[in-house]
Amino acid sequence: MGTKCIGVDIGGTTVKLGIFETTGELICKWEVPTRRDEGGRYILPDVADSVLTQLKENGISKEDVVGAGMGVPGPVMPDGYVKVCVNLGWKDLYPARELEDLLGFPVKIGNDANVASLGEMWQGGGKGVENMVMVTLGTGVGSGVIMNGQIVTGCHGLAGEIGHFHVRDDETETCGCGGKGCLEQQASATGIVKEARRLLASTDEPSAMREYGDTLSAKDVFDEAKNGDKLAVQVAEGVGYYMGLGLALVTLTIDPELYVIGGGVSAAGPYLIDLIRKNYEALTPLSPDKAKIVLATLGNNAGIYGGARLAMS
Amino acid sequence: MGTKCIGVDIGGTTVKLGIFETTGELICKWEVPTRRDEGGRYILPDVADSVLTQLKENGISKEDVVGAGMGVPGPVMPDGYVKVCVNLGWKDLYPARELEDLLGFPVKIGNDANVASLGEMWQGGGKGVENMVMVTLGTGVGSGVIMNGQIVTGCHGLAGEIGHFHVRDDETETCGCGGKGCLEQQASATGIVKEARRLLASTDEPSAMREYGDTLSAKDVFDEAKNGDKLAVQVAEGVGYYMGLGLALVTLTIDPELYVIGGGVSAAGPYLIDLIRKNYEALTPLSPDKAKIVLATLGNNAGIYGGARLAMS
Repeated sequence: MGTKCIGVDIGGTTVKLGIFETTGELICKWEVPTRRDEGGRYILPDVADSVLTQLKENGISKEDVVGAGMGVPGPVMPDGYVKVCVNLGWKDLYPARELEDLLGFPVKIGNDANVASLGEMWQGGGKGVENMVMVTLGTGVGSGVIMNGQIVTGCHGLAGEIGHFHVRDDETETCGCGGKGCLEQQASATGIVKEARRLLASTDEPSAMREYGDTLSAKDVFDEAKNGDKLAVQVAEGVGYYMGLGLALVTLTIDPELYVIGGGVSAAGPYLIDLIRKNYEALTPLSPDKAKIVLATLGNNAGIYGGARLAMS
Repeated sequence: MGTKCIGVDIGGTTVKLGIFETTGELICKWEVPTRRDEGGRYILPDVADSVLTQLKENGISKEDVVGAGMGVPGPVMPDGYVKVCVNLGWKDLYPARELEDLLGFPVKIGNDANVASLGEMWQGGGKGVENMVMVTLGTGVGSGVIMNGQIVTGCHGLAGEIGHFHVRDDETETCGCGGKGCLEQQASATGIVKEARRLLASTDEPSAMREYGDTLSAKDVFDEAKNGDKLAVQVAEGVGYYMGLGLALVTLTIDPELYVIGGGVSAAGPYLIDLIRKNYEALTPLSPDKAKIVLATLGNNAGIYGGARLAMS
């Protein structure tokens, strides 16, 4: 039985890779560009070449590798089939089988949000916990549901799509999913900036957020909220409310042990977590005893940790 | 190995019991009154006496019994501990262990909504399905989440409490849980009547619902809605919207294969299911491929079927 495993996190711009001890220590990590030309046909060969080179450089034989696990930015069927992966140009393929043929050891695959969740469970904010939900607040809002240590993909690949919870009736813009009032429209980095701009446009009140002009980011909004800027606080409170509602709804469905909050927006840290927690508590008066909320700790490495963990599952 | 199993459904007024073949056929069913005097101390001995008598009358030896399973109207910890069960007068006990001592064969226990869900999975609307959620629309709104054929209780006993999803921001009354705007306040039999009365009080428009006076029931509301009564239709549409939203939220969390709708309100039949489905579809534009919605088929027997199934798990 091997003692090493490999994590592969395929993003639209770069592929992140890591070799790990099966006990969880990161041996080395690196990146290669994601070549999306010609329907993304070079992505998996590039990954394979790069992995085999790194193994050689680290003096690791294939026999010592349990396997590899990869996360991809799109829906993955339970049998590993990927119908379409817009960000990579992929259509109609079984990426794990292809990579397995190229590498010569077992490869597993999952959706990137689910795989990152597994990483946080293994060596991150959820270490030691078998029932948790990781919510990634980035360009969108993704989540990975883990029950009994296993990723829950659902019967049609829709598990963990909490970014598309309908949480707001008076939203007028349409979400990427075709709905209106999705959690993602309120709590993603994009949604936060949109809400801030909307609020600024609706009033003449002074706000430090006005100084940023077109460059205003979700980070700026939270920075100014922490500085006490009234309008920024109002936007941050909105994020706290809708995220608190989202977690309350998940708790009343599957009641996990823990929520791990990651993604770029989570850089706002304990300030954000406290806002979410306040609303989460208020919206689950049924019981004081329920899942805790913590920050993710692996940052951009969650995907490679999760891939490595997936390889062993 | 035995070929019989026993289902026990303990309610606040009566205990329903059934003896089943392990293959799912009901051999006999009966009821005994629930004696709630003296902290409900007679309930389990009454159940045991009654079961042992019935086994004898049916010529079934204890050796031929795999075990019994019981559903109780309140939260049950994963180890079988019941802290309090208001409707039975119980406090601080392990009912399954007590009944096991009295019967002399294994006894398992679960929350009644969860156990009923297991029954519908075994021999009812969800037969053949391993991932489903049963929603019971009765005095309250309860649900039982089943994944991979097992009841999901959650880490703090809160799984399946979808009746307390916060779904309505402008609700002014307080729910039993202490919150405001819970699904239960909109879609339970009680909530439906309350909404109908509210609507009738808010307008002078004629409505057949006015004829019922104080006796107006959820069934009356749906009957009049089916007759085309405008205000009744409006109330029914509200039930459809909030239930559709509730199921959409569950789908985007765990994505089951099927929803089974039971409880007294579900007597409204396909008319109700169609209203729920319309809104459920509209609130999950992310994918056309998702869990179906069907009616429960076991009625009041779901609890004994589920208890018997639990005995074998």
